[in-house]
Amino acid sequence: MRPRASAHKQGIAAARLLAIYRVRADARAIEARAQAIAVEQSVEMPVSAIDDPYVLSEIVGRVEGIAERERGFFEVRISLAAATTGFEAGQLINMLFGNSSIHDDVVLEDAVLPATLAAAFPGPNRGLIGLRELAGAERRALTCSALKPQGLPPRELADLARRLALGGLDFIKDDHGLADQAYSRFADRVNACAAGVREASRETGRLTRYVPSLSGNLDQLRAQVALAREAGLAMVLVAPMIIGLPQLRALAAENPALAFMAHPALAGASRIAPPLLLGKLFRLFGADATIFPNHGGRFGYSRATCAGLAEAARAPWGDIRSCVPVPAGGMTPERVPEMLDFYGPDAMLLIGGGLLAARERLTEETAAFTRMVEQYAYR
Amino acid sequence: MRPRASAHKQGIAAARLLAIYRVRADARAIEARAQAIAVEQSVEMPVSAIDDPYVLSEIVGRVEGIAERERGFFEVRISLAAATTGFEAGQLINMLFGNSSIHDDVVLEDAVLPATLAAAFPGPNRGLIGLRELAGAERRALTCSALKPQGLPPRELADLARRLALGGLDFIKDDHGLADQAYSRFADRVNACAAGVREASRETGRLTRYVPSLSGNLDQLRAQVALAREAGLAMVLVAPMIIGLPQLRALAAENPALAFMAHPALAGASRIAPPLLLGKLFRLFGADATIFPNHGGRFGYSRATCAGLAEAARAPWGDIRSCVPVPAGGMTPERVPEMLDFYGPDAMLLIGGGLLAARERLTEETAAFTRMVEQYAYR
Repeated sequence: MRPRASAHKQGIAAARLLAIYRVRADARAIEARAQAIAVEQSVEMPVSAIDDPYVLSEIVGRVEGIAERERGFFEVRISLAAATTGFEAGQLINMLFGNSSIHDDVVLEDAVLPATLAAAFPGPNRGLIGLRELAGAERRALTCSALKPQGLPPRELADLARRLALGGLDFIKDDHGLADQAYSRFADRVNACAAGVREASRETGRLTRYVPSLSGNLDQLRAQVALAREAGLAMVLVAPMIIGLPQLRALAAENPALAFMAHPALAGASRIAPPLLLGKLFRLFGADATIFPNHGGRFGYSRATCAGLAEAARAPWGDIRSCVPVPAGGMTPERVPEMLDFYGPDAMLLIGGGLLAARERLTEETAAFTRMVEQYAYR
Repeated sequence: MRPRASAHKQGIAAARLLAIYRVRADARAIEARAQAIAVEQSVEMPVSAIDDPYVLSEIVGRVEGIAERERGFFEVRISLAAATTGFEAGQLINMLFGNSSIHDDVVLEDAVLPATLAAAFPGPNRGLIGLRELAGAERRALTCSALKPQGLPPRELADLARRLALGGLDFIKDDHGLADQAYSRFADRVNACAAGVREASRETGRLTRYVPSLSGNLDQLRAQVALAREAGLAMVLVAPMIIGLPQLRALAAENPALAFMAHPALAGASRIAPPLLLGKLFRLFGADATIFPNHGGRFGYSRATCAGLAEAARAPWGDIRSCVPVPAGGMTPERVPEMLDFYGPDAMLLIGGGLLAARERLTEETAAFTRMVEQYAYR
């Protein structure tokens, strides 16, 4: 409801969220540009044509601060009424960056959500502690690899899964390119790979978890979740920007025992700062683990971006569980010590192609990787 | 199924899609970079570690051409097996740009889909001809305005809708910021605004159509579609990049009489060329009309981008109906003649804030806008 006038004076701060933008502008133009963004992200019309006092005082975005960060680049802080989000994932990102995403002088750097808004999104179902339980790993970093390439039939992917699992991994995820394709149907692949990993687990005594990649609309995602659960699986992979953020939220809410790994496909290079999107927001909407391209791999994220992302995923945040950062993207066993030093034990190391390149020595190389992680003495 | 070897020799072209990228690179580096993108967008692992002949010959992306477009920028054409898309909207965009969206040296410029793949997505339900029928407008450009600002209660939005409709508009859409908020619930707003527009239509004798904005996950979207249909509405607005492309496809498929207007929120500035994303792909997945920021308004699209977008939305494309381009984003009545010359009659002109600024003269200014469009003699 629109609060009565008297309510306006109480707790306004608690009812507003803060969007923090990095804006490229001339010093002379930045005040007008900041005001324009505040309008674009809220009422999207000339403020002079608005009479309603509630809209003017609460709904129109408010420029809360402007600070030059480097020559020609400004940090602009704009507050928005939390009520505008409808406490829904899609509308939240719409309020933060819907139209401004089309402006190439603006990057969405960060968002600060009031507790009332964050409480509408309970975050990860399992979180770091839950994933440690799934893996039976109390203190060390977690390990993961990927099933590739797409195009292989289910029995070959399953054989790969089995050989990877024999190396003692905690998690084996599908490549995010594995969907529901005619040459490898989701149901066939998931049953085959789950069986392959189970067989290896009996041999190793490890709790290796197979994590299938889901795709499609919410109906298809639900059908795939049902198949995964029937196969006894505890975690699934989704690409939130492809399925749409509201679907991640819906799946996480209706499967409270299931863990979710988020993939950054279609997340863009930098228009939304990766620590915010892949760290904070994916976590808020239900990601228990978030994959991102580690610095020094095939992608261009800096060390600072990666550190910021890990921080956003893991930092204490009310009742919201930690999300496990999963650095990846062209990693190799050689980089394990450096990555463990950089991320510490509360992370999951994902090496895909770097292990698959070992071919017939796949299980041995994988075992060397998992052993290195288990035995590492953190600095 | 993985085809038998003999099938490989037949119709391979028909079974491949072409992704066209604009890549920033040194001339010495472009061949390796193009090859890396082809791998990234397909198998995402060292090709040397792949044995399977089907994967090597069909699934690994193929660089089909490299051409320098300007110094340091290359057009790279990569073909991918259509089967990798699973003939599903999300996986199609994943194959075209999933991981490469994270590389800031690559823009997805265009995509050419084989007929077999396009046939999996029947496109707009109503298309240009259908929207002309809805509006009772055979030849002229269509007209549209927007209900704003968010924060108003349903009765005030409904009054605005009524006064806009009295001006003889064809379509009145919700601002894309109108969601399901406590101060204006979707059901209340839609019923009130539909009634307001109906009342005005009885007075004007026009077929003005109210187009509510949908939000949320697929369940919520479906519930909102049901409410819209119960209110007698024929068209709805969605932001495909926020709800997720698979949801647009699902809604369009299961509501074959309903028309869909697409909003560009969260579509980004340029990492996917707007003619491809807002024109071709939104059309393919079911948009009957596509809103985009016209050149010379609040956003940075060039004339060439706008012309290309309109072309992608309207060009003949097998059995796929035309999608109506809807230039918007800070347009004013003064620009109508120029816009009509630029886009011709097969377009919808959307003026939101530019009309609302007229305040008590809203109906008169709206009537002047619609009259201008009706009486315009195209050059």
